Amino acid sequence: MSELPIHESVLEADNGKRQAAFEADFAALGETLDRRGIAVDAIVEKLRAFAVAVPSWGVGTGGTRFARFPGPGEPRGIMEKLNDCAVIQQLGRATPSVSLHIPWDRADPAALKDKAASLGLCFDAMNSNTFQDHPDDPRQPLSYKFGSLSHADPAVRAQAVEHNLAVAEFGRAIGSTALTVWVGDGANFPGQSDHSRSFERYLQSARAIYAGLPQNFRLFTEHKMYEPAFYSTVVQDWGTNLLIARELGDRAFCLVDLGHHAPNVNIEQIVSRLIFAKKLGGFHFNDAKYGDDDLDAGSIDPFRLFLVFNELVEAGEALERLAPAHMIDQSHNVTDPIESLIRSAGEIRRAYAQALLVDRAALRGHQDDNDAIMASECLKQAFRTDVTPILAKARLLDGGAIDPIAAYRASGYRKKVAAERPAVRGSGGGIV
Amino acid sequence: MSELPIHESVLEADNGKRQAAFEADFAALGETLDRRGIAVDAIVEKLRAFAVAVPSWGVGTGGTRFARFPGPGEPRGIMEKLNDCAVIQQLGRATPSVSLHIPWDRADPAALKDKAASLGLCFDAMNSNTFQDHPDDPRQPLSYKFGSLSHADPAVRAQAVEHNLAVAEFGRAIGSTALTVWVGDGANFPGQSDHSRSFERYLQSARAIYAGLPQNFRLFTEHKMYEPAFYSTVVQDWGTNLLIARELGDRAFCLVDLGHHAPNVNIEQIVSRLIFAKKLGGFHFNDAKYGDDDLDAGSIDPFRLFLVFNELVEAGEALERLAPAHMIDQSHNVTDPIESLIRSAGEIRRAYAQALLVDRAALRGHQDDNDAIMASECLKQAFRTDVTPILAKARLLDGGAIDPIAAYRASGYRKKVAAERPAVRGSGGGIV
Amino acid sequence: MSELPIHESVLEADNGKRQAAFEADFAALGETLDRRGIAVDAIVEKLRAFAVAVPSWGVGTGGTRFARFPGPGEPRGIMEKLNDCAVIQQLGRATPSVSLHIPWDRADPAALKDKAASLGLCFDAMNSNTFQDHPDDPRQPLSYKFGSLSHADPAVRAQAVEHNLAVAEFGRAIGSTALTVWVGDGANFPGQSDHSRSFERYLQSARAIYAGLPQNFRLFTEHKMYEPAFYSTVVQDWGTNLLIARELGDRAFCLVDLGHHAPNVNIEQIVSRLIFAKKLGGFHFNDAKYGDDDLDAGSIDPFRLFLVFNELVEAGEALERLAPAHMIDQSHNVTDPIESLIRSAGEIRRAYAQALLVDRAALRGHQDDNDAIMASECLKQAFRTDVTPILAKARLLDGGAIDPIAAYRASGYRKKVAAERPAVRGSGGGIV
Amino acid sequence: MSELPIHESVLEADNGKRQAAFEADFAALGETLDRRGIAVDAIVEKLRAFAVAVPSWGVGTGGTRFARFPGPGEPRGIMEKLNDCAVIQQLGRATPSVSLHIPWDRADPAALKDKAASLGLCFDAMNSNTFQDHPDDPRQPLSYKFGSLSHADPAVRAQAVEHNLAVAEFGRAIGSTALTVWVGDGANFPGQSDHSRSFERYLQSARAIYAGLPQNFRLFTEHKMYEPAFYSTVVQDWGTNLLIARELGDRAFCLVDLGHHAPNVNIEQIVSRLIFAKKLGGFHFNDAKYGDDDLDAGSIDPFRLFLVFNELVEAGEALERLAPAHMIDQSHNVTDPIESLIRSAGEIRRAYAQALLVDRAALRGHQDDNDAIMASECLKQAFRTDVTPILAKARLLDGGAIDPIAAYRASGYRKKVAAERPAVRGSGGGIV
Repeated sequence: MSELPIHESVLEADNGKRQAAFEADFAALGETLDRRGIAVDAIVEKLRAFAVAVPSWGVGTGGTRFARFPGPGEPRGIMEKLNDCAVIQQLGRATPSVSLHIPWDRADPAALKDKAASLGLCFDAMNSNTFQDHPDDPRQPLSYKFGSLSHADPAVRAQAVEHNLAVAEFGRAIGSTALTVWVGDGANFPGQSDHSRSFERYLQSARAIYAGLPQNFRLFTEHKMYEPAFYSTVVQDWGTNLLIARELGDRAFCLVDLGHHAPNVNIEQIVSRLIFAKKLGGFHFNDAKYGDDDLDAGSIDPFRLFLVFNELVEAGEALERLAPAHMIDQSHNVTDPIESLIRSAGEIRRAYAQALLVDRAALRGHQDDNDAIMASECLKQAFRTDVTPILAKARLLDGGAIDPIAAYRASGYRKKVAAERPAVRGSGGGIV
Repeated sequence: MSELPIHESVLEADNGKRQAAFEADFAALGETLDRRGIAVDAIVEKLRAFAVAVPSWGVGTGGTRFARFPGPGEPRGIMEKLNDCAVIQQLGRATPSVSLHIPWDRADPAALKDKAASLGLCFDAMNSNTFQDHPDDPRQPLSYKFGSLSHADPAVRAQAVEHNLAVAEFGRAIGSTALTVWVGDGANFPGQSDHSRSFERYLQSARAIYAGLPQNFRLFTEHKMYEPAFYSTVVQDWGTNLLIARELGDRAFCLVDLGHHAPNVNIEQIVSRLIFAKKLGGFHFNDAKYGDDDLDAGSIDPFRLFLVFNELVEAGEALERLAPAHMIDQSHNVTDPIESLIRSAGEIRRAYAQALLVDRAALRGHQDDNDAIMASECLKQAFRTDVTPILAKARLLDGGAIDPIAAYRASGYRKKVAAERPAVRGSGGGIV
Repeated sequence: MSELPIHESVLEADNGKRQAAFEADFAALGETLDRRGIAVDAIVEKLRAFAVAVPSWGVGTGGTRFARFPGPGEPRGIMEKLNDCAVIQQLGRATPSVSLHIPWDRADPAALKDKAASLGLCFDAMNSNTFQDHPDDPRQPLSYKFGSLSHADPAVRAQAVEHNLAVAEFGRAIGSTALTVWVGDGANFPGQSDHSRSFERYLQSARAIYAGLPQNFRLFTEHKMYEPAFYSTVVQDWGTNLLIARELGDRAFCLVDLGHHAPNVNIEQIVSRLIFAKKLGGFHFNDAKYGDDDLDAGSIDPFRLFLVFNELVEAGEALERLAPAHMIDQSHNVTDPIESLIRSAGEIRRAYAQALLVDRAALRGHQDDNDAIMASECLKQAFRTDVTPILAKARLLDGGAIDPIAAYRASGYRKKVAAERPAVRGSGGGIV
Repeated sequence: MSELPIHESVLEADNGKRQAAFEADFAALGETLDRRGIAVDAIVEKLRAFAVAVPSWGVGTGGTRFARFPGPGEPRGIMEKLNDCAVIQQLGRATPSVSLHIPWDRADPAALKDKAASLGLCFDAMNSNTFQDHPDDPRQPLSYKFGSLSHADPAVRAQAVEHNLAVAEFGRAIGSTALTVWVGDGANFPGQSDHSRSFERYLQSARAIYAGLPQNFRLFTEHKMYEPAFYSTVVQDWGTNLLIARELGDRAFCLVDLGHHAPNVNIEQIVSRLIFAKKLGGFHFNDAKYGDDDLDAGSIDPFRLFLVFNELVEAGEALERLAPAHMIDQSHNVTDPIESLIRSAGEIRRAYAQALLVDRAALRGHQDDNDAIMASECLKQAFRTDVTPILAKARLLDGGAIDPIAAYRASGYRKKVAAERPAVRGSGGGIV
């Protein structure tokens, strides 16, 4: 793979500096886990098998409604975005796939496939966009200002359905097997739209999309409590999302974005319920303190992320049958997006590793004994374990970096692309 | 009905003082509505046909975990509670039925029926209690400290199922046709219970209850986000509630308590979704600013109450087929419970009356035109209308009071029962 | 005032159609209030004396981080914005002043004053902007990506201070007497900035601004819980805002934006506390359900708006000494901004009128008697009163419209300016 | 100290079993920290110097308004409570002091001092109680149903002031040097009390308490958003709390209970602001997901607890001058209270240890460089470190247990006291 963006020598040099300390920490952790009856190598192997997709839009700098502050060397198109994604994968070895967003990433499918293959990347779920207008695009003559799949006007709905099917078809051409649908449809004022009629129109449109998908495609619908609509959203929570997935059929599933819930909501319980209902389609990982903040996974409440993975590990075979999609969905407003994505993928794997350390037999025993404190401590012990050496080991075995952000900084990649890519001005997010 | 608790002369005297002003206000409102094309008498008749049940436990003073401050003349048992309920109905004419809670209200069914009939009352949905221990009750040898319908121990679950069936049977004997099930089951710590296994146990128990209900009974399950459990609750939201109702069958429905949701949640949209799913069973009305505050309906956010009724009126025939149950569920910590229940029933009818005033044809037009401001104003105009004279008219036509709280105060009822009923000491809520 | 944007004949014709119904409603309300011992004309006069400023940026269409959907005829600069503001004032007669935002509204001060005077408008508090970069502006060479008044780099802080002083000086030239400072400074991640050091830097900068203000200026600082920063904000709540105002001096005051608080917070109590502390500077009125939604005032929770005004009326002389500034701060994403501002100004006056109707002597009596239900009903009765005829009367007496939105639609103003003003493309909010 | 409740042999036996693994883990951690330039022994010594008080009421089982489910062997009075506190201290070695609550813990001061001394305990801040009625107590003839320090009736206020002074005097006699005042005063409905007048009455009462305190006493006032009052609370947030502390004087400080804030509030920033204002008096530690859940410290969001301690360590000398009081305030509804308090004290020390590991020089560098991701990772690295061996070492050096909960279980203490202490029935919390 001669095209990989970071030169091997950079990686080797950085790893070399850290090798001894890493080996010592890994050995010590291995002994500690051994005393708990856990084989560290088995955990390493499970981590190596766990991947999470990066969003193509995530490698650009995000923003808020107030402003966007561009960073140096932002990618100017999907091909440059793929280069950045390749850096993330080369160093972190957790993100072999990229999730595209249409129309932002429209390009020649064959060229896309070739480019990705040359970088060791492939494509995950496709994302459609009916929450923005693209006035120069002849395929979108009608505005989504007042909705898309649930719009009062059947012509707008038809346009939105058509767009989704085109996105799926595009995805099929590049090897994707799923379509994620998130809409901004809703209302800013009580009365603006009828909760019932708009939902029925949404369902009608969703059925049309579902019916037109390629045979091997899954459909992921995504709920969100609010924003951009500020009084009501058509798919506002997992309850409505479940109604939709059940109405549509066997290949329709619910996508859980960790930032799309009401304050204080117990997200891991929702994950459990969707597994029960056989409708968990996957995740958009990120973290949040207030609203849909789209911060780096695990940066605000790492225990919550662990608890989500605890549900996934607990579900065992039931989850394997669902094979949920793991995707990052973040907005990088104040960091180098490559760095944020590297560490977020790491934090997601960290939560998974911690969840794998839970002594499940003991936990069930405590639960059946109503021993609340031991059950709580059982999870806490796993969460407290510093699995950093395990993450590093998994990366190393796959050719990545012990400390991928340090290696990235050592590589000078950002400086190089900043010289090659003129600054992108203006705002305009592209943040889901 | 010679037994009614307030003497007719009190009512007549109080109404007499207010008659002239009432007539003037009613006439003026009639003219205003006439200019909007609304016949005031039709609204009055719809209000007269709208009833809401009072909870037997609501006539006692409620409390918090910190303290309960008893009021004078608290009822010492179900028979005295029914007397208080009769006052509420006599003056307010909106609450002909009472919702009982077992074991608190256990009594001889025939005596209960006679007592109620003599007061012009009947019985609404029954409420079971598996969130408290009653150590002196031989029917409850096992503790619910760690759950009831979802308890890890099958013996506890069996006891809880048995209790629910006994409550339903008791209800059948007094003319009730529905059982409301709310449980406090949940966990205080992550790990304490398994989200999936506890839910499956809950479902197993609920199926047993459903199967054992009297033929003409409906089952209402109630969701609640938290309290008494502070990390997770088995039936935490309407999504889980809907899963349950669909698992159980055609006579199982979801009950919506207005105070049982996460902060900022759009409750009226949930109402719409449950109507869509044909699973709206009814309401526990109250108001809240922070958690499950159980304050008087409409006292904190009257517009929200109106928006809920706007959904009910909008649903039209779809709602009539569901025939949801309307019940008040409040905790009266600082007011005379009779006064709070009189005014809450009035506020609920007020919201219904306002919703009836919405120009639905105009509203749909604005919605279809995406005229957000006119749609919003269409609802606001109805909400702004002071329908107080309509409420008074409906009461008057049924023999009630123009100003029921004033008439109640004039009657000296509280002073009289305070003399008859020794103070109840200690805390111990009884607040659902 | 021959330059007023709506022709008198349009106004007269629309008022003419509504005159009879209005007179009847006003007379009926007058009689109802008379029975309560309230002279309707006194309320009308108080309303006429109550004004609220419109924000210059409010007449453009707002947006979210996802998209902005422009409307027809958007103003292309401050002069066209003033025309739109004149429409709002001509019809609604509640908004004689405009609050400018620099650099968005930079223009020749003398020309601005002349333009405003010709439209019967004047200027309210000035707003500075250190939450966006303006790369083409030579006065802002340094970026605010990582803060402004609290930035780690003293050069950025100096630039931000200088900007604020320039805005105040600009304001002085056009007759303004106050500067409102809102900053987006904060952090997206724990650790990104030091809570203590960044606050001390903020204070240092604020002191420099305060020291450099024109003699007759007041300084309003504005708190906000989050957004654009998603982990912490330097001026996050009224507690910090109060610390600032007290540190700065007698002419520094706290501004309350109704949408800038944590979920469930009791805003009217904060207003009361700031009056106690003699530091209530004024308001940014709007409404919100979730975050800083910037919806039309009174559209989501009209009772809350009433309760704020209840505090203002209750404060009486203490408030008069403070003379708080009333400003609207909204983002009009799905409505015609002129219509939203007309109705919001009306809703603010409505809440004030309702608060004026409260029987304060009775209320205090109920409070001193611990008669919670009568105290609650005392406020509710005032809130329930439909004061629409009073609002219309106040407008009419000042030459405005009985139904200002209807008159605006009848005027064809939007269509006319849509023809004159080419569409503004792209996103980029301008929404505070 | 022959009276210590757990026999030394139990402790020795349990420690003996764990010694080897502990030594290995401690050595490995020491090496890891050494590579980071941190001397593990210095951390151990700082931990040994850090103590947190246990609340006397915490050793009983708590409850909710719905029910209280007693546990076996609950203490029947303050002397038995002290025995339980001694177990916590003997094994955990982090809690040498107890915080009393009057009237619950009223006893002969000399006997209390002797008892505590014999157990190696002393007394921390005193807590008064004006949120409950004690009808049998001749010192409280008047009810607090409608408030205490802010009550409309001056006689009730005088009684509440007198109670607080008596509690302080009692505290003086047993060696306490601080009084904590938390009141439940507030309103359930808008209008029930006047925000301004009730606050002024509160201040008047608080001034009287402050003036009457023993010379060496500090006064801690505690804010809380809601509960038991559900519309407004007199001391609702830190802003009001700060107003109070500044009004009262130099010995008045603000107490921060981690569960008393609005959803999503950034508590660590409030801590920073109170340090800035020189008014941080101390903490009531616990954890919460929804409201004032009073769960075990660190059980819901351990990262948040760490961030609070990060502020404390960061403040350095400024904090030392304030010398804040550390107290646990939890309600143990489903666990053995002794176990919950042992582990909570441990979690609090854990957060402190993690905060001590932060590389402060590096952190400041990242902050000054606006390197958000490195600053974030700098905190995360410290948080991730599993400091369990450090906690064990600190306990061991002071004679405690490697695994205090295991040692407690091995001791059979609960079984022994369950045999000695008949069950306490009924509800009635005692949970602050």
